[in-house]
Amino acid sequence: MGKVYLIGAGPGDPELLTVKAARILATADIVLHDALVTQEVLRLVSPKARVIDVGKRCGQKLLTQDEINAYLVHAAAAYEVVVRLKCGDPLIFGRAGEEIEALSNAGVDFEIVPGITSALAAAAAACVSLTDRRLASQVLFTTAHRKGGAMSVDWIRAVTPDTTVVVYMPGGAYAELANALVESGFDPQTPCVAVSCAAQPSQQIWQTDIAGLGKLKGVAAPALLIVGRVAQPEAESIAADIWKQMQSSTLKDEQPIT
Amino acid sequence: MGKVYLIGAGPGDPELLTVKAARILATADIVLHDALVTQEVLRLVSPKARVIDVGKRCGQKLLTQDEINAYLVHAAAAYEVVVRLKCGDPLIFGRAGEEIEALSNAGVDFEIVPGITSALAAAAAACVSLTDRRLASQVLFTTAHRKGGAMSVDWIRAVTPDTTVVVYMPGGAYAELANALVESGFDPQTPCVAVSCAAQPSQQIWQTDIAGLGKLKGVAAPALLIVGRVAQPEAESIAADIWKQMQSSTLKDEQPIT
Repeated sequence: MGKVYLIGAGPGDPELLTVKAARILATADIVLHDALVTQEVLRLVSPKARVIDVGKRCGQKLLTQDEINAYLVHAAAAYEVVVRLKCGDPLIFGRAGEEIEALSNAGVDFEIVPGITSALAAAAAACVSLTDRRLASQVLFTTAHRKGGAMSVDWIRAVTPDTTVVVYMPGGAYAELANALVESGFDPQTPCVAVSCAAQPSQQIWQTDIAGLGKLKGVAAPALLIVGRVAQPEAESIAADIWKQMQSSTLKDEQPIT
Repeated sequence: MGKVYLIGAGPGDPELLTVKAARILATADIVLHDALVTQEVLRLVSPKARVIDVGKRCGQKLLTQDEINAYLVHAAAAYEVVVRLKCGDPLIFGRAGEEIEALSNAGVDFEIVPGITSALAAAAAACVSLTDRRLASQVLFTTAHRKGGAMSVDWIRAVTPDTTVVVYMPGGAYAELANALVESGFDPQTPCVAVSCAAQPSQQIWQTDIAGLGKLKGVAAPALLIVGRVAQPEAESIAADIWKQMQSSTLKDEQPIT
Protein backbone atom coordinates (compact mmCIF):
# COMPACT_ATOMS: atom_id res chain seq x y z
CA MET A 1 0.00 0.00 0.00
CA GLY A 2 1.43 3.35 -1.07
CA LYS A 3 1.01 6.84 0.29
CA VAL A 4 -0.83 9.69 -1.39
CA TYR A 5 0.58 13.22 -1.19
CA LEU A 6 -1.89 16.05 -1.86
CA ILE A 7 0.59 18.71 -2.96
CA GLY A 8 0.19 22.40 -3.69
CA ALA A 9 1.98 23.30 -6.93
CA GLY A 10 1.85 27.04 -6.20
CA PRO A 11 1.09 29.65 -8.85
CA GLY A 12 3.14 28.21 -11.74
CA ASP A 13 6.78 29.21 -11.20
CA PRO A 14 8.65 25.99 -10.26
CA GLU A 15 10.76 28.01 -7.82
CA LEU A 16 7.58 28.76 -5.83
CA LEU A 17 6.98 25.13 -4.91
CA THR A 18 8.07 24.25 -1.41
CA VAL A 19 11.34 22.36 -0.99
CA LYS A 20 9.23 19.43 0.28
CA ALA A 21 6.95 19.42 -2.76
CA ALA A 22 9.94 19.45 -5.12
CA ARG A 23 11.58 16.60 -3.19
CA ILE A 24 8.47 14.40 -3.29
CA LEU A 25 7.82 15.12 -7.00
CA ALA A 26 11.36 13.94 -7.78
CA THR A 27 10.62 10.55 -6.18
CA ALA A 28 7.01 10.14 -7.39
CA ASP A 29 5.83 6.94 -9.08
CA ILE A 30 2.62 8.50 -10.41
CA VAL A 31 1.40 12.10 -10.59
CA LEU A 32 -2.24 13.12 -11.16
CA HIS A 33 -2.28 16.85 -11.89
CA ASP A 34 -4.73 19.66 -12.58
CA ALA A 35 -4.85 21.08 -16.12
CA LEU A 36 -3.44 24.45 -15.03
CA VAL A 37 -0.26 23.01 -13.47
CA THR A 38 2.50 24.42 -15.69
CA GLN A 39 4.94 22.45 -17.81
CA GLU A 40 7.78 24.12 -15.87
CA VAL A 41 6.46 22.56 -12.65
CA LEU A 42 5.91 19.16 -14.30
CA ARG A 43 9.61 19.13 -15.28
CA LEU A 44 10.36 18.57 -11.56
CA VAL A 45 8.59 15.18 -11.68
CA SER A 46 10.75 12.06 -11.69
CA PRO A 47 11.31 10.92 -15.31
CA LYS A 48 10.23 7.40 -14.32
CA ALA A 49 6.80 8.56 -13.08
CA ARG A 50 3.49 8.18 -14.88
CA VAL A 51 2.03 11.67 -15.35
CA ILE A 52 -1.71 12.03 -15.87
CA ASP A 53 -3.68 15.23 -16.53
CA VAL A 54 -6.94 14.74 -14.62
CA GLY A 55 -7.93 18.38 -14.94
CA LYS A 56 -10.56 20.06 -16.93
CA ARG A 57 -10.24 23.12 -19.12
CA CYS A 58 -12.75 25.12 -21.15
CA GLY A 59 -15.54 23.03 -19.67
CA GLN A 60 -14.24 19.77 -21.11
CA LYS A 61 -13.85 17.51 -18.11
CA LEU A 62 -11.22 14.84 -18.55
CA LEU A 63 -12.23 13.01 -15.35
CA THR A 64 -15.05 13.72 -12.91
CA GLN A 65 -14.22 14.40 -9.24
CA ASP A 66 -15.59 10.97 -8.33
CA GLU A 67 -13.38 9.36 -10.96
CA ILE A 68 -10.34 11.22 -9.63
CA ASN A 69 -11.16 10.06 -6.08
CA ALA A 70 -11.42 6.45 -7.22
CA TYR A 71 -8.25 6.75 -9.30
CA LEU A 72 -6.30 8.00 -6.26
CA VAL A 73 -7.43 5.06 -4.14
CA HIS A 74 -6.52 2.55 -6.86
CA ALA A 75 -3.15 4.23 -7.48
CA ALA A 76 -2.28 3.87 -3.79
CA ALA A 77 -2.70 0.09 -4.14
CA ALA A 78 -0.39 -0.08 -7.17
CA TYR A 79 2.31 2.54 -6.49
CA GLU A 80 4.45 3.58 -3.55
CA VAL A 81 4.55 7.38 -3.97
CA VAL A 82 1.31 8.78 -5.41
CA VAL A 83 1.10 12.55 -5.94
CA ARG A 84 -2.09 14.54 -6.43
CA LEU A 85 -0.73 17.86 -7.69
CA LYS A 86 -3.03 20.88 -7.42
CA CYS A 87 -2.58 24.51 -8.42
CA GLY A 88 -1.91 26.89 -5.54
CA ASP A 89 -2.68 25.34 -2.16
CA PRO A 90 -4.75 22.14 -1.94
CA LEU A 91 -7.02 23.46 0.84
CA ILE A 92 -7.98 26.80 -0.81
CA PHE A 93 -10.59 26.25 -3.56
CA GLY A 94 -8.85 22.98 -4.41
CA ARG A 95 -11.54 20.33 -3.82
CA ALA A 96 -9.15 18.47 -1.54
CA GLY A 97 -12.01 17.78 0.89
CA GLU A 98 -13.59 15.24 -1.42
CA GLU A 99 -10.26 13.49 -2.02
CA ILE A 100 -9.44 13.47 1.70
CA GLU A 101 -12.83 11.81 2.30
CA ALA A 102 -12.27 9.13 -0.34
CA LEU A 103 -8.76 8.35 0.95
CA SER A 104 -9.91 8.24 4.59
CA ASN A 105 -12.83 5.97 3.77
CA ALA A 106 -10.53 3.61 1.87
CA GLY A 107 -7.97 3.57 4.69
CA VAL A 108 -5.25 5.02 2.46
CA ASP A 109 -2.32 6.79 4.12
CA PHE A 110 -2.07 10.39 2.93
CA GLU A 111 -0.37 13.70 3.70
CA ILE A 112 -1.09 17.28 2.68
CA VAL A 113 1.81 19.46 1.53
CA PRO A 114 0.77 23.13 1.46
CA GLY A 115 1.49 25.43 -1.47
CA ILE A 116 1.60 29.15 -2.27
CA THR A 117 -2.03 30.02 -2.93
CA SER A 118 -2.51 32.44 -5.82
CA ALA A 119 -3.61 35.33 -3.56
CA LEU A 120 -0.15 35.37 -2.01
CA ALA A 121 1.61 35.15 -5.38
CA ALA A 122 -0.57 37.91 -6.87
CA ALA A 123 -0.07 40.16 -3.83
CA ALA A 124 3.71 39.62 -4.00
CA ALA A 125 3.71 40.45 -7.73
CA ALA A 126 1.67 43.62 -7.18
CA CYS A 127 3.46 44.57 -3.91
CA VAL A 128 0.14 44.70 -2.05
CA SER A 129 0.38 44.07 1.68
CA LEU A 130 -2.99 42.31 2.09
CA THR A 131 -3.29 43.12 5.79
CA ASP A 132 -1.28 46.34 6.07
CA ARG A 133 -2.21 47.14 9.67
CA ARG A 134 -2.68 50.80 8.81
CA LEU A 135 -5.36 50.07 6.16
CA ALA A 136 -6.74 46.58 6.79
CA SER A 137 -7.34 44.25 9.70
CA GLN A 138 -8.30 41.10 7.82
CA VAL A 139 -8.44 39.45 4.40
CA LEU A 140 -11.26 37.41 2.83
CA PHE A 141 -10.61 34.86 0.06
CA THR A 142 -13.79 34.31 -1.96
CA THR A 143 -14.95 33.49 -5.52
CA ALA A 144 -17.34 34.94 -8.08
CA HIS A 145 -20.30 32.58 -8.38
CA ARG A 146 -23.54 32.56 -10.27
CA LYS A 147 -26.73 31.92 -8.34
CA GLY A 148 -29.93 31.43 -10.28
CA GLY A 149 -28.26 32.83 -13.41
CA ALA A 150 -27.10 36.17 -11.93
CA MET A 151 -23.70 36.85 -10.48
CA SER A 152 -23.79 36.86 -6.71
CA VAL A 153 -21.35 38.08 -4.12
CA ASP A 154 -24.05 38.41 -1.47
CA TRP A 155 -22.22 35.91 0.70
CA ILE A 156 -19.62 38.64 1.29
CA ARG A 157 -22.19 40.75 3.18
CA ALA A 158 -21.12 43.67 5.28
CA VAL A 159 -17.40 43.38 4.88
CA THR A 160 -15.94 46.31 6.78
CA PRO A 161 -13.88 49.03 5.06
CA ASP A 162 -10.78 47.53 6.62
CA THR A 163 -11.37 44.11 5.01
CA THR A 164 -9.30 43.23 1.95
CA VAL A 165 -11.27 40.94 -0.40
CA VAL A 166 -9.49 38.63 -2.81
CA VAL A 167 -11.74 37.23 -5.54
CA TYR A 168 -10.45 33.95 -6.96
CA MET A 169 -11.63 32.98 -10.45
CA PRO A 170 -13.22 36.39 -11.14
CA GLY A 171 -14.22 35.30 -14.65
CA GLY A 172 -14.53 37.73 -17.55
CA ALA A 173 -17.72 39.58 -16.59
CA TYR A 174 -16.02 42.43 -14.70
CA ALA A 175 -18.87 44.95 -15.15
CA GLU A 176 -21.28 42.45 -13.62
CA LEU A 177 -18.80 41.69 -10.83
CA ALA A 178 -18.45 45.45 -10.12
CA ASN A 179 -22.24 45.77 -9.79
CA ALA A 180 -22.37 42.78 -7.48
CA LEU A 181 -19.58 44.21 -5.29
CA VAL A 182 -21.36 47.58 -5.00
CA GLU A 183 -24.66 45.85 -4.20
CA SER A 184 -22.77 43.95 -1.53
CA GLY A 185 -21.89 47.24 0.16
CA PHE A 186 -18.60 48.34 -1.38
CA ASP A 187 -17.90 51.97 -2.27
CA PRO A 188 -17.45 52.18 -6.09
CA GLN A 189 -14.16 54.07 -5.51
CA THR A 190 -12.65 51.11 -3.66
CA PRO A 191 -9.25 50.39 -5.28
CA CYS A 192 -8.71 47.12 -7.16
CA VAL A 193 -5.74 45.27 -8.57
CA ALA A 194 -6.26 42.48 -11.11
CA VAL A 195 -3.40 40.04 -11.62
CA SER A 196 -3.32 37.58 -14.49
CA CYS A 197 -0.93 34.59 -14.52
CA ALA A 198 0.81 35.62 -11.29
CA ALA A 199 4.45 34.48 -11.03
CA GLN A 200 4.48 33.31 -14.66
CA PRO A 201 6.33 34.92 -17.60
CA SER A 202 2.99 36.12 -19.01
CA GLN A 203 2.05 37.89 -15.75
CA GLN A 204 0.06 41.13 -16.14
CA ILE A 205 -1.17 43.59 -13.52
CA TRP A 206 -4.01 46.14 -13.81
CA GLN A 207 -4.72 48.98 -11.36
CA THR A 208 -8.26 50.35 -11.21
CA ASP A 209 -11.21 50.76 -8.85
CA ILE A 210 -14.60 49.04 -8.68
CA ALA A 211 -16.16 51.76 -10.88
CA GLY A 212 -13.46 51.13 -13.50
CA LEU A 213 -13.64 47.32 -13.41
CA GLY A 214 -16.04 47.20 -16.35
CA LYS A 215 -13.35 48.60 -18.64
CA LEU A 216 -10.96 45.73 -17.91
CA LYS A 217 -10.31 43.72 -21.06
CA GLY A 218 -8.11 40.76 -21.87
CA VAL A 219 -7.42 39.58 -18.31
CA ALA A 220 -6.34 36.03 -19.15
CA ALA A 221 -7.12 33.20 -16.71
CA PRO A 222 -5.89 32.20 -14.22
CA ALA A 223 -6.64 35.64 -12.78
CA LEU A 224 -7.29 37.10 -9.38
CA LEU A 225 -8.81 40.37 -8.15
CA ILE A 226 -7.70 42.20 -4.99
CA VAL A 227 -10.30 44.70 -3.68
CA GLY A 228 -9.65 47.09 -0.80
CA ARG A 229 -7.80 50.13 0.48
CA VAL A 230 -4.47 48.25 0.39
CA ALA A 231 -4.87 47.87 -3.40
CA GLN A 232 -4.37 51.54 -4.26
CA PRO A 233 -1.20 52.89 -5.84
CA GLU A 234 1.01 54.47 -3.20
CA ALA A 235 -1.03 52.65 -0.55
CA GLU A 236 2.01 52.72 1.70
CA SER A 237 2.39 56.50 1.62
CA ILE A 238 -1.31 57.05 2.26
CA ALA A 239 -1.14 54.47 5.00
CA ALA A 240 1.75 56.28 6.64
CA ASP A 241 -0.32 59.45 7.05
CA ILE A 242 -3.33 57.58 8.43
CA TRP A 243 -1.05 55.64 10.74
CA LYS A 244 0.48 58.79 12.24
CA GLN A 245 -2.98 60.17 13.03
CA MET A 246 -4.13 56.87 14.53
CA GLN A 247 -1.04 56.36 16.64
CA SER A 248 -1.59 59.69 18.34
CA SER A 249 -5.20 58.77 19.23
CA THR A 250 -6.85 55.38 19.75
CA LEU A 251 -4.58 52.78 18.28
CA LYS A 252 -2.33 52.15 21.24
CA ASP A 253 -4.79 49.72 22.82
CA GLU A 254 -5.66 47.92 19.58
CA GLN A 255 -2.59 45.75 19.36
CA PRO A 256 -2.80 42.04 18.49
CA ILE A 257 -2.94 39.84 21.56
CA THR A 258 0.31 37.89 21.36
CA MET B 1 23.42 49.27 -4.33
CA GLY B 2 22.08 45.86 -3.28
CA LYS B 3 18.65 44.31 -3.51
CA VAL B 4 16.33 43.55 -0.61
CA TYR B 5 14.30 40.33 -0.62
CA LEU B 6 11.25 40.26 1.66
CA ILE B 7 10.98 36.51 2.11
CA GLY B 8 8.31 34.33 3.72
CA ALA B 9 9.94 31.73 5.96
CA GLY B 10 6.76 29.66 6.19
CA PRO B 11 5.59 28.01 9.42
CA GLY B 12 8.95 26.74 10.71
CA ASP B 13 9.78 23.51 8.88
CA PRO B 14 12.70 24.32 6.55
CA GLU B 15 11.15 22.01 3.94
CA LEU B 16 8.16 24.37 3.76
CA LEU B 17 10.18 27.28 2.44
CA THR B 18 9.87 27.77 -1.29
CA VAL B 19 12.71 26.60 -3.51
CA LYS B 20 13.32 30.28 -4.34
CA ALA B 21 13.51 31.34 -0.69
CA ALA B 22 16.00 28.56 0.07
CA ARG B 23 18.13 29.54 -2.95
CA ILE B 24 18.27 33.22 -1.97
CA LEU B 25 19.02 32.44 1.70
CA ALA B 26 22.01 30.36 0.57
CA THR B 27 23.47 33.39 -1.22
CA ALA B 28 22.53 36.09 1.30
CA ASP B 29 25.07 38.59 2.60
CA ILE B 30 22.88 39.74 5.49
CA VAL B 31 19.64 38.36 6.98
CA LEU B 32 17.32 40.33 9.27
CA HIS B 33 14.82 37.87 10.75
CA ASP B 34 11.79 37.79 13.03
CA ALA B 35 12.20 36.23 16.47
CA LEU B 36 9.92 33.28 15.65
CA VAL B 37 11.88 32.14 12.58
CA THR B 38 13.17 28.71 13.63
CA GLN B 39 16.80 27.65 14.00
CA GLU B 40 16.11 24.91 11.43
CA VAL B 41 15.22 27.57 8.84
CA LEU B 42 18.22 29.75 9.79
CA ARG B 43 20.52 26.80 9.03
CA LEU B 44 19.69 27.39 5.33
CA VAL B 45 21.39 30.80 5.48
CA SER B 46 24.83 31.12 3.87
CA PRO B 47 27.54 30.65 6.54
CA LYS B 48 29.19 33.86 5.38
CA ALA B 49 26.08 35.97 6.02
CA ARG B 50 25.48 38.31 8.95
CA VAL B 51 22.36 37.12 10.76
CA ILE B 52 20.44 39.58 12.93
CA ASP B 53 17.35 38.93 15.05
CA VAL B 54 15.26 42.09 14.71
CA GLY B 55 12.18 40.47 16.21
CA LYS B 56 10.44 40.95 19.44
CA ARG B 57 9.23 38.35 21.88
CA CYS B 58 7.33 38.57 25.14
CA GLY B 59 6.86 42.29 24.64
CA GLN B 60 10.58 43.02 24.59
CA LYS B 61 11.23 44.77 21.31
CA LEU B 62 14.74 44.37 20.00
CA LEU B 63 14.24 46.98 17.26
CA THR B 64 11.24 49.19 16.51
CA GLN B 65 9.55 48.93 13.10
CA ASP B 66 11.04 52.31 12.14
CA GLU B 67 14.49 51.09 13.13
CA ILE B 68 14.04 47.92 11.03
CA ASN B 69 12.95 50.03 8.05
CA ALA B 70 16.03 52.26 8.38
CA TYR B 71 18.30 49.24 8.88
CA LEU B 72 17.01 47.65 5.64
CA VAL B 73 17.73 50.80 3.64
CA HIS B 74 21.24 51.09 5.08
CA ALA B 75 21.93 47.37 4.51
CA ALA B 76 21.02 47.75 0.82
CA ALA B 77 23.80 50.35 0.49
CA ALA B 78 26.40 48.07 2.09
CA TYR B 79 25.47 44.56 0.92
CA GLU B 80 24.49 42.92 -2.36
CA VAL B 81 21.87 40.39 -1.21
CA VAL B 82 19.83 41.63 1.76
CA VAL B 83 17.13 39.32 3.15
CA ARG B 84 14.28 40.37 5.41
CA LEU B 85 13.00 36.98 6.62
CA LYS B 86 9.47 36.89 8.05
CA CYS B 87 7.41 34.06 9.51
CA GLY B 88 4.72 32.69 7.22
CA ASP B 89 4.01 34.98 4.27
CA PRO B 90 5.30 38.59 4.30
CA LEU B 91 1.96 40.05 3.14
CA ILE B 92 -0.30 38.35 5.72
CA PHE B 93 0.01 40.03 9.15
CA GLY B 94 3.70 40.60 8.41
CA ARG B 95 4.07 44.41 8.49
CA ALA B 96 5.69 44.27 5.06
CA GLY B 97 3.71 47.37 4.02
CA GLU B 98 5.82 49.63 6.20
CA GLU B 99 9.06 48.11 4.89
CA ILE B 100 7.86 48.34 1.26
CA GLU B 101 7.15 52.02 1.85
CA ALA B 102 10.59 52.70 3.33
CA LEU B 103 12.37 50.85 0.52
CA SER B 104 10.29 52.58 -2.19
CA ASN B 105 10.90 56.01 -0.69
CA ALA B 106 14.64 55.34 -0.56
CA GLY B 107 14.70 54.05 -4.14
CA VAL B 108 15.95 50.62 -3.06
CA ASP B 109 15.36 47.67 -5.41
CA PHE B 110 13.32 44.96 -3.70
CA GLU B 111 11.35 41.79 -4.38
CA ILE B 112 8.75 39.88 -2.39
CA VAL B 113 9.06 36.10 -2.18
CA PRO B 114 5.83 34.58 -0.86
CA GLY B 115 5.73 31.95 1.88
CA ILE B 116 3.36 29.38 3.35
CA THR B 117 1.17 31.42 5.69
CA SER B 118 0.37 29.64 8.94
CA ALA B 119 -3.33 29.14 8.09
CA LEU B 120 -2.30 26.85 5.24
CA ALA B 121 0.20 24.94 7.38
CA ALA B 122 -2.31 24.53 10.21
CA ALA B 123 -5.07 23.40 7.84
CA ALA B 124 -2.71 20.87 6.23
CA ALA B 125 -1.70 19.54 9.65
CA ALA B 126 -5.34 19.20 10.76
CA CYS B 127 -6.58 17.98 7.33
CA VAL B 128 -9.14 20.80 7.19
CA SER B 129 -10.19 21.82 3.69
CA LEU B 130 -10.70 25.54 4.41
CA THR B 131 -13.06 26.08 1.49
CA ASP B 132 -14.61 22.60 1.06
CA ARG B 133 -17.23 23.60 -1.51
CA ARG B 134 -19.85 21.47 0.25
CA LEU B 135 -19.48 23.35 3.57
CA ALA B 136 -17.83 26.70 2.85
CA SER B 137 -17.62 29.25 0.05
CA GLN B 138 -14.94 31.53 1.45
CA VAL B 139 -12.30 31.93 4.13
CA LEU B 140 -11.47 34.96 6.29
CA PHE B 141 -8.03 35.46 7.87
CA THR B 142 -8.33 37.75 10.90
CA THR B 143 -6.74 38.37 14.32
CA ALA B 144 -7.92 38.75 17.90
CA HIS B 145 -7.49 42.37 18.93
CA ARG B 146 -8.30 44.43 21.96
CA LYS B 147 -10.21 47.63 21.53
CA GLY B 148 -10.61 49.91 24.51
CA GLY B 149 -9.48 47.10 26.83
CA ALA B 150 -12.03 44.47 25.75
CA MET B 151 -11.47 41.79 23.15
CA SER B 152 -13.16 42.68 19.91
CA VAL B 153 -13.97 40.64 16.85
CA ASP B 154 -16.74 43.02 15.77
CA TRP B 155 -14.88 43.67 12.53
CA ILE B 156 -15.87 40.14 11.48
CA ARG B 157 -19.55 41.20 11.38
CA ALA B 158 -22.13 39.04 9.68
CA VAL B 159 -19.89 36.28 8.43
CA THR B 160 -22.19 33.78 6.79
CA PRO B 161 -22.46 30.17 8.01
CA ASP B 162 -20.46 29.12 4.96
CA THR B 163 -17.52 31.33 5.89
CA THR B 164 -14.49 29.68 7.47
CA VAL B 165 -12.72 32.05 9.89
CA VAL B 166 -9.05 31.64 10.71
CA VAL B 167 -7.93 33.63 13.76
CA TYR B 168 -4.21 34.39 13.72
CA MET B 169 -2.53 35.13 17.06
CA PRO B 170 -5.59 34.05 19.11
CA GLY B 171 -3.71 34.72 22.37
CA GLY B 172 -4.46 32.84 25.57
CA ALA B 173 -7.86 34.28 26.52
CA TYR B 174 -9.97 31.62 24.76
CA ALA B 175 -13.07 32.10 26.94
CA GLU B 176 -13.08 35.79 26.10
CA LEU B 177 -12.48 35.01 22.42
CA ALA B 178 -15.42 32.57 22.47
CA ASN B 179 -17.70 35.28 23.89
CA ALA B 180 -16.53 37.74 21.26
CA LEU B 181 -17.17 35.22 18.45
CA VAL B 182 -20.71 34.52 19.71
CA GLU B 183 -21.41 38.26 20.06
CA SER B 184 -20.20 38.60 16.49
CA GLY B 185 -22.96 36.23 15.34
CA PHE B 186 -21.47 32.73 15.52
CA ASP B 187 -23.46 29.75 16.80
CA PRO B 188 -21.73 28.47 19.98
CA GLN B 189 -21.78 24.97 18.47
CA THR B 190 -19.60 26.06 15.54
CA PRO B 191 -16.68 23.61 15.33
CA CYS B 192 -13.13 24.83 16.02
CA VAL B 193 -9.65 23.45 15.56
CA ALA B 194 -6.72 25.02 17.39
CA VAL B 195 -3.25 24.29 16.07
CA SER B 196 -0.11 25.14 18.00
CA CYS B 197 3.34 25.21 16.33
CA ALA B 198 2.02 23.94 12.97
CA ALA B 199 4.57 21.98 10.93
CA GLN B 200 7.05 21.90 13.80
CA PRO B 201 8.07 18.88 15.92
CA SER B 202 6.10 20.33 18.87
CA GLN B 203 2.90 20.63 16.81
CA GLN B 204 -0.37 20.02 18.73
CA ILE B 205 -3.97 19.98 17.53
CA TRP B 206 -7.16 20.46 19.58
CA GLN B 207 -10.71 19.77 18.34
CA THR B 208 -13.58 21.59 20.05
CA ASP B 209 -16.38 24.08 19.38
CA ILE B 210 -16.85 27.74 20.32
CA ALA B 211 -18.70 26.74 23.51
CA GLY B 212 -15.76 24.54 24.49
CA LEU B 213 -13.01 27.05 23.67
CA GLY B 214 -12.84 28.34 27.24
CA LYS B 215 -11.56 24.93 28.40
CA LEU B 216 -8.54 25.05 26.08
CA LYS B 217 -5.34 25.12 28.12
CA GLY B 218 -1.67 25.16 27.21
CA VAL B 219 -1.98 26.14 23.56
CA ALA B 220 1.58 27.37 23.05
CA ALA B 221 2.27 30.25 20.62
CA PRO B 222 2.53 30.48 17.69
CA ALA B 223 -1.05 29.21 17.52
CA LEU B 224 -3.96 29.53 15.14
CA LEU B 225 -7.68 28.91 15.47
CA ILE B 226 -9.88 27.61 12.61
CA VAL B 227 -13.63 28.28 13.14
CA GLY B 228 -16.34 26.91 10.85
CA ARG B 229 -18.26 23.91 9.61
CA VAL B 230 -15.17 22.57 7.83
CA ALA B 231 -13.42 22.29 11.22
CA GLN B 232 -15.57 19.43 12.55
CA PRO B 233 -14.32 15.86 12.85
CA GLU B 234 -15.55 13.79 9.91
CA ALA B 235 -16.33 17.05 8.09
CA GLU B 236 -15.83 15.21 4.82
CA SER B 237 -18.46 12.55 5.54
CA ILE B 238 -21.01 15.11 6.70
CA ALA B 239 -20.16 17.20 3.67
CA ALA B 240 -20.79 14.28 1.36
CA ASP B 241 -24.39 13.94 2.57
CA ILE B 242 -25.08 17.66 2.26
CA TRP B 243 -23.49 17.65 -1.17
CA LYS B 244 -25.71 14.87 -2.47
CA GLN B 245 -28.83 16.77 -1.37
CA MET B 246 -27.57 20.02 -2.90
CA GLN B 247 -26.55 18.47 -6.19
CA SER B 248 -30.05 17.18 -6.73
CA SER B 249 -31.55 20.64 -6.13
CA THR B 250 -30.05 24.09 -6.63
CA LEU B 251 -26.34 23.72 -6.89
CA LYS B 252 -26.03 23.06 -10.60
CA ASP B 253 -26.11 26.77 -11.46
CA GLU B 254 -23.83 27.87 -8.62
CA GLN B 255 -20.55 26.87 -10.20
CA PRO B 256 -17.54 29.18 -10.11
CA ILE B 257 -17.28 31.34 -13.21
CA THR B 258 -14.11 30.12 -14.87
